[in-house]
Amino acid sequence: MDLSPGKLDSLFHALGDPTRRAIVERLSEGPATVSDIAAPFEMSLPAVMVHLRKLEAAGLVVSEKSGRVRTLTLVTASYTTIRSWLDAQRAAWEARLDRMERFALGHKKRTGG
Amino acid sequence: MDLSPGKLDSLFHALGDPTRRAIVERLSEGPATVSDIAAPFEMSLPAVMVHLRKLEAAGLVVSEKSGRVRTLTLVTASYTTIRSWLDAQRAAWEARLDRMERFALGHKKRTGG
Repeated sequence: MDLSPGKLDSLFHALGDPTRRAIVERLSEGPATVSDIAAPFEMSLPAVMVHLRKLEAAGLVVSEKSGRVRTLTLVTASYTTIRSWLDAQRAAWEARLDRMERFALGHKKRTGG
Repeated sequence: MDLSPGKLDSLFHALGDPTRRAIVERLSEGPATVSDIAAPFEMSLPAVMVHLRKLEAAGLVVSEKSGRVRTLTLVTASYTTIRSWLDAQRAAWEARLDRMERFALGHKKRTGG
């Protein structure tokens, strides 16, 4: 799994925008064409395309063209990359809380408190 | 839990930078002073402060000043906000995969294949 700083930068950056998250939310329900995706937004097609390109560049979305229709699919593995980073941080603070708890218990035993 | 677009924007944006993620990684191991945090970076203290202010604004970090020393603590609940959004997307695509599987099984039964 690619946990490189550049990969994480582009993933977090791509998701830091409400339109791009709305596109991801739509694609979580299944692949869709560019016009399907653009429909709910009060936005020009070129403006939507800019967002789609950022999502593709981040690896969150892949697109395939068949004739004149471009279909987009979510790359669910990208979520795993973000979750792995978040989980690593959580593991670090949970380990620290465990150490603190053990220390407190040891102290209680030592002092008979 | 605040899953508003603005909150998610600022959280994802805050984490879309390698220095800010490195600060979060450091704080996952426990609270630290501003100088502790600035030490590993080849960066001026004011530059580090800009990153810390973004992390505070996003609600990922809180700081407390005691005399001349400012101590920073990670707000672990912010992770839960990000994870909730990610989990909601995953739930959507897993539900879709389940529907597809049930449909395929039904088809197999119908056709005796």
